Amino acid sequence: MTQTSPTAAVLIIGDEILSGRTQDTNLNTIARFLGALGIVLEEARTVGDRPEQITQALNALRSSHDYVFTTGGIGPTHDDITADCVAEAMGVPLREHPQALAILERRYGDEFNAARRRMARIPEGGILIANPVTDAPGFQIGNVFVMAGVPKIMTAMLEDVAPRLRTGAVVHARTIRVTGVGEGTVADILRAAADANRALSFGSYPFGAGTSGEIGTNLVVRGQDLALLNGAVADLMLALEAAGIAAALID
Amino acid sequence: MTQTSPTAAVLIIGDEILSGRTQDTNLNTIARFLGALGIVLEEARTVGDRPEQITQALNALRSSHDYVFTTGGIGPTHDDITADCVAEAMGVPLREHPQALAILERRYGDEFNAARRRMARIPEGGILIANPVTDAPGFQIGNVFVMAGVPKIMTAMLEDVAPRLRTGAVVHARTIRVTGVGEGTVADILRAAADANRALSFGSYPFGAGTSGEIGTNLVVRGQDLALLNGAVADLMLALEAAGIAAALID
Repeated sequence: MTQTSPTAAVLIIGDEILSGRTQDTNLNTIARFLGALGIVLEEARTVGDRPEQITQALNALRSSHDYVFTTGGIGPTHDDITADCVAEAMGVPLREHPQALAILERRYGDEFNAARRRMARIPEGGILIANPVTDAPGFQIGNVFVMAGVPKIMTAMLEDVAPRLRTGAVVHARTIRVTGVGEGTVADILRAAADANRALSFGSYPFGAGTSGEIGTNLVVRGQDLALLNGAVADLMLALEAAGIAAALID
Repeated sequence: MTQTSPTAAVLIIGDEILSGRTQDTNLNTIARFLGALGIVLEEARTVGDRPEQITQALNALRSSHDYVFTTGGIGPTHDDITADCVAEAMGVPLREHPQALAILERRYGDEFNAARRRMARIPEGGILIANPVTDAPGFQIGNVFVMAGVPKIMTAMLEDVAPRLRTGAVVHARTIRVTGVGEGTVADILRAAADANRALSFGSYPFGAGTSGEIGTNLVVRGQDLALLNGAVADLMLALEAAGIAAALID
C-alpha cells in the first residue's frame, strides 16, 4: 500500500448482529465498495445498542482512520440511538435538520408522527446522505458517514457517499486455484514469492477441508501495480508447474 | 442482563474479510453458539493480517471481556501469524507443542514438511482445541480461544470449546411480526413497552423497505426471565391489537 491511499474503518451498530439473529452483510458490501475506490479498509467493529460503547468505538475509529462508515440505528424507534451517540462523540448538539424534516414530511404526509420526526435529528454540521429507498436520510459529519442498517438502503446510500470520498490507488487481485494438494504443500513456494515481492500481498485460502470432494487452496495475490502483479503471478504459476502442482489462474 | 453472565468478544483475523473477497459467517455462528450458553457477546472486531493490529486488538479485548474467540490465521502459510501474535500479546514464547506435533505427523505422514510443522507452534501454556475436520488444532490460552478461519473447521472446534466455558442465564427471544405499517407507526407502542419492562430489551427490524411487496417490521423482545418475557409479549400484542395493527407472534 502506498502512503497516499485513504484508510477507513467500519462500525456496525446493533444488538441483532451480536445476538446472532441477523447475519451482517453490510461489511462485505462496504469492503467491496471501498476496494473499488482504492480506499484501504483497515478495521471493522461491531457493537451493541449501548451509548457508551458506540461513542467510545466511534471516537477510537474516527481518530485513527481517514473515514468511518457506520451502519444501523437510525430508524424511528427507541433503540435507534446512533445519531444521539454521534452527536455526543463529536461534542455537538443534535438538532432537527430542516431539509431532513421536509423530506420526512413529504414522505409520510398524514402518517408523520413524533417517532418518525426523530429521524430528522442530525448532529449540528451534518450533511445529509440521500436514501432513495425509504427517504429517511443518513448523514455525514466530518469524516464519519452514518448509514442505515437495512442492507438495501445502506447499499443505496453508498451511491451518494462515493463522490465525497478521496480515492486511492486501486488494489488489484489475481486468484490461482491449486487443486489436489493442501496449502501446506504450496506454502514454501508461496512464501518465496511473497519474499521476492514485498510490494504485493499473498494469501492462501484452502477449500475442501477434508471432505470427500476436491481439496486445494486459492492463492490470492494483491497489489496496486498491475504490471508487477501480473509478473509475480506468472512467476508463481511457473514455480507451481515446476513442482508438479496443478494450478489455474481463475480470476 | 444479570451481572453473573460471562461476557465475550470475537476477533476476526484476515485480509480476505476486509478486502471484501470473503463474506464472514463465523461471527454469526459464534454469536448463536454463545447465546445458547448464556454468554453475552458484547463486541466483535475484524482486523487484517498485520501483527501490531492483531496484538493490540487482542490485548484490548482480553482485558475487557471474560472470553475472547479469534478466527483465522492458524494455517501453514506465511500469512498465518495468529499464533505468533497471541504469544507476543501474552508475553510468552511460541513453542512446538508435542501433542500438536504428534497429531500433525500422524495426519500428514510422508507429506509432513516445515510449513505444516509451523502449525504445531503453540504459545507456552496453551491447551489444544481439537479439529475433527483437518486435525491441525486450535488452542486456548488463558481466556483466549484461537480457532481456524474456515467456517466448517471453526464450527467443529466450538464443540471442544463449549465444555470449557462458564455459562450464564440464557437470553430468550420472541418475535412479533407486524405487517402493513412501517416501524414509525409502532414506535410509540414499542417505546412504552420498553419503558414498562426495563429488564427486557425491545428491538424493531423493518422489512420490505418500500418495495412493491409487503412492508412491516419484526419486533424482537429479549430477556432472561421467561415468565416476564412472555407476559410483556402478551401485553405488547394486546397494545398492537388495540391500535388496529396487524401483528402475529412468529417465534
